[in-house]
Amino acid sequence: MPSDPSFSIGVDYGTNSVRALVVDTASGEEIATAVRQFAHGEQGVITDPREPNLARQHPADYAEGFVHAVGQAVRAAGTVPGFHPSRVVGLGVDATGSTPIPVDADGVALALKPQFDREPDAMAWLWKDHTSHAEAAEITERARAGDYPYLAKCGGTYSSEWFWSKILRCARTSPEIAHAAYSWVEQADYIPALITGNRKPETMARSACAAGHKGMHNPDWGGLPAEVFLRGLSPYLAEVRGRFAPRVSPSDQPAGPLAEQFAAAVGLPPGIPVAVGIIDAHAGAVGSGVGPGTLVKIIGTSTCDCMVAPMDGSMPDIPGVCGIARESILPGMLGIEAGQSAVGDIFNWFVQRIAPGGGPAADLHARLTAEASALKPGHSGLVALDWHNGNRTVLTDPLLTGLIVGQTLHTTAAEIYRALIEATAFGALKIIERLAEYGVAIDRVVNCGGIAEKSPLVMQIYADVCNRPMLVSRSTQACALGAAVFGAVVGGAHPDVPAAQAAMTGVRRESYHPDPAAAGVYRELYAVYSRLHDAFGGVAPGEEMGAVMKDLLRIKAAARR
Amino acid sequence: MPSDPSFSIGVDYGTNSVRALVVDTASGEEIATAVRQFAHGEQGVITDPREPNLARQHPADYAEGFVHAVGQAVRAAGTVPGFHPSRVVGLGVDATGSTPIPVDADGVALALKPQFDREPDAMAWLWKDHTSHAEAAEITERARAGDYPYLAKCGGTYSSEWFWSKILRCARTSPEIAHAAYSWVEQADYIPALITGNRKPETMARSACAAGHKGMHNPDWGGLPAEVFLRGLSPYLAEVRGRFAPRVSPSDQPAGPLAEQFAAAVGLPPGIPVAVGIIDAHAGAVGSGVGPGTLVKIIGTSTCDCMVAPMDGSMPDIPGVCGIARESILPGMLGIEAGQSAVGDIFNWFVQRIAPGGGPAADLHARLTAEASALKPGHSGLVALDWHNGNRTVLTDPLLTGLIVGQTLHTTAAEIYRALIEATAFGALKIIERLAEYGVAIDRVVNCGGIAEKSPLVMQIYADVCNRPMLVSRSTQACALGAAVFGAVVGGAHPDVPAAQAAMTGVRRESYHPDPAAAGVYRELYAVYSRLHDAFGGVAPGEEMGAVMKDLLRIKAAARR
Repeated sequence: MPSDPSFSIGVDYGTNSVRALVVDTASGEEIATAVRQFAHGEQGVITDPREPNLARQHPADYAEGFVHAVGQAVRAAGTVPGFHPSRVVGLGVDATGSTPIPVDADGVALALKPQFDREPDAMAWLWKDHTSHAEAAEITERARAGDYPYLAKCGGTYSSEWFWSKILRCARTSPEIAHAAYSWVEQADYIPALITGNRKPETMARSACAAGHKGMHNPDWGGLPAEVFLRGLSPYLAEVRGRFAPRVSPSDQPAGPLAEQFAAAVGLPPGIPVAVGIIDAHAGAVGSGVGPGTLVKIIGTSTCDCMVAPMDGSMPDIPGVCGIARESILPGMLGIEAGQSAVGDIFNWFVQRIAPGGGPAADLHARLTAEASALKPGHSGLVALDWHNGNRTVLTDPLLTGLIVGQTLHTTAAEIYRALIEATAFGALKIIERLAEYGVAIDRVVNCGGIAEKSPLVMQIYADVCNRPMLVSRSTQACALGAAVFGAVVGGAHPDVPAAQAAMTGVRRESYHPDPAAAGVYRELYAVYSRLHDAFGGVAPGEEMGAVMKDLLRIKAAARR
Repeated sequence: MPSDPSFSIGVDYGTNSVRALVVDTASGEEIATAVRQFAHGEQGVITDPREPNLARQHPADYAEGFVHAVGQAVRAAGTVPGFHPSRVVGLGVDATGSTPIPVDADGVALALKPQFDREPDAMAWLWKDHTSHAEAAEITERARAGDYPYLAKCGGTYSSEWFWSKILRCARTSPEIAHAAYSWVEQADYIPALITGNRKPETMARSACAAGHKGMHNPDWGGLPAEVFLRGLSPYLAEVRGRFAPRVSPSDQPAGPLAEQFAAAVGLPPGIPVAVGIIDAHAGAVGSGVGPGTLVKIIGTSTCDCMVAPMDGSMPDIPGVCGIARESILPGMLGIEAGQSAVGDIFNWFVQRIAPGGGPAADLHARLTAEASALKPGHSGLVALDWHNGNRTVLTDPLLTGLIVGQTLHTTAAEIYRALIEATAFGALKIIERLAEYGVAIDRVVNCGGIAEKSPLVMQIYADVCNRPMLVSRSTQACALGAAVFGAVVGGAHPDVPAAQAAMTGVRRESYHPDPAAAGVYRELYAVYSRLHDAFGGVAPGEEMGAVMKDLLRIKAAARR
């Protein structure tokens, strides 16, 4: 006799909204979902017209979003036979990152206090906030100059998107807010702390994923970067370091039980275990079945590539790969994160900025996709570099830009659109080749995210360019599903994450297989892409082209002063 | 007492129509003009959907166009005080080129015979017909292999647009038409022959301009290329050579008197002297005041740059310059022709193919021009190569393509539009630098053509990029005016061409002067352009980029097979 069904809830904090997903722990069936848009700013993002790099969220949206999204999902699940709130065994949370939030000594976000309510620097510094590039460069420089080991695990460069860059920026430009902030907490830690009440900065659960990929945390060097290193950047960073829980945990560990006030507000019994948080893309990888030999690509405006590898010391550092961190994806394994800094963003840029057809963007995407689908590989004579937002992997250089070559007077918009798609596929292949080169075996590639789900053209080009099948995750809410997998594990529905993944995740029956003729043409085009990549990326010896994009950015910055 | 006014008529044969201009020989005042659209094909051009390189004109349009355009202009002039047909002292003709026409032994175009009336290969092979690229390569190859001197005067490569390429193509692919054609005549020679009746191929007046720039004619090697050279390509070419008048003439010489039938048809007295023909761009240079130290740029869909230099043997060959020919522009001087294979065509391509705004192209040009005018030099961080139709000068390589670098997710259509304009300006500067490098002093630059007249944005960018003033020709019909200058000289209204130019041509009072700050930024951007130019143009030693565009064209050709 099968036992009574049990359910877990995944809560996925995104850029514009929070999503709650109720999942059957035995089958992975997604029985109810609800989304709550964030109330502050423009679609949840606070911006500043004078500073285009600024992007913040208001922490007030987090509790409000949790109550509405989870409450609504639980109510919706109530109409499904077999569901009862008492059968919810656990809850997992994923969030954007690095999104550090300044908090007081009790772990309460500064922006929730009236005096800081309208102060962007006191809010959550959203992942895509790029105000801290000077500070990031300073951190990279100091780590290199001091021969510290930190950069080897994050691709050789510390990013302006990450934890310490943002805190240092705040210390430099808003010292009064830094002074008021007792500590800083990643959003992936903040939400579990909030809903469990386990909020004290020194003792709250901290995510191995967020700390490892964004905070340079690594047990090899005793956790966070050395006190002396951080103090050299700013004494304030050393203070923050001292108020950070010493241990970090993977997400199969509980952050605490769901606090009574939140349980009551969403219609769940109190005390349900809440898993340690995880960054959204990594949760998406879990929800798409990541494991040894499986690369998961989360393809959206940008792309995140997730892999795991044994934690037995056999894994070398991989030059140019954004992040390698212990237990950041699956417990007991190294998590490897690579990525492309713009994918869907490039297609949207072309449709919205360059080829405005007068109608809705979706219509133009559809028309260009139809026209581009009718073209054969190589037909346009175009090759592009997909660096419109810099290059995250393998060049780890934000100061690179786009390029397209091969235009004639007959070149069409659809040909350029297809060339941009192909460029992102070539970029994807660069990552796969780099991983393979360093011994990370890739047996299958699972794609998830809106583009993977909705664009057969993109997926077929990826299959042809990479010359390997492209699978698509079964779930259209893979991040929330990944969080629910952790909820199921902390709730005891499965003994471990792989068992939960086997039961709850999967791929679509339909997949994309490479066409040998197309793959042959793309092999030639990839050789051209690689020449441009190495020359303009500055990694080809003796190439003069390496300085071109930098020189243009310098001229541009001067022109805009 | 001033003598009675006298007038000359310039007749300008273009791609779509023929224009007649009646000019006061003393002042250059343009007292009447008329245009006749050609009747055949699409706006005068016969094309073939199966062969996109094919472009022909029907010679029947030439006589019909002359009668209508000149007749209408003379009638319109009749309403102007002081004009009388008897006061027309001479008539000059310019035409497109190289536009060779197969003719019979009497100089009658084959296409005027009923059996050839609908046969494109029997019509005029219009300048922009590119069906003969294989034959052009063969001619270049044979000239190089045999160490013949011919290529040194035409930039090192014989073009698919030119006289012998087209005749060889016809001999190879339409031998029955070649067999029926006793000889071939450039359009610039055909029209004067037609209207004077001096039509016999062996004795008709042949233009030094057309023969020199398109037919490899040069007195240094005794006129046309050696019989043995042409015979090696095809015995037919040697036959055509033997039926070519031995002497060529500059356009201050008469081709003959206006024949009675044409005089009667247009309302002029018979016997008016008709000047030897000239190619349209060269006529435009004359009508814009070309002379020692003056570069004239005729800026349209493509650009032609004309200069003159002393014929005293001091002028070296200039690598990469399309053509150097004796007396091809002004009598007694070397004519130098350079050019850019696409300028306005690139702007039109972007507007019509890439950024279709839904409305008329002219509106989008206006909108993009307004937006681009608001940008500062360097503001976009973009640099482009203007090779969408290959590179005529200084690389003389049709197998080059466009490139643009520096795109970000914020790049706008107007920024790209401006970058394309700047790219053509950088290409223009490359030509000026090459001429200067070989001792051709340039004291002033006069621009004419639609873009020069209508786009202050383009002219200002050219001034800033070239860091020298850009003057604009006073006449908006500079080609027809140049033809009228020759008409005035053969008619005796002026003793020579410079005297006629001094009286009849000029520049607008308003000119464009370089802004020092903009020129400084463009100096930096030009350095980037030059690096890309040399690397992708294959002239930088040890550069891997030189093969990129060729490889893409090869992959493209294979994909389209």
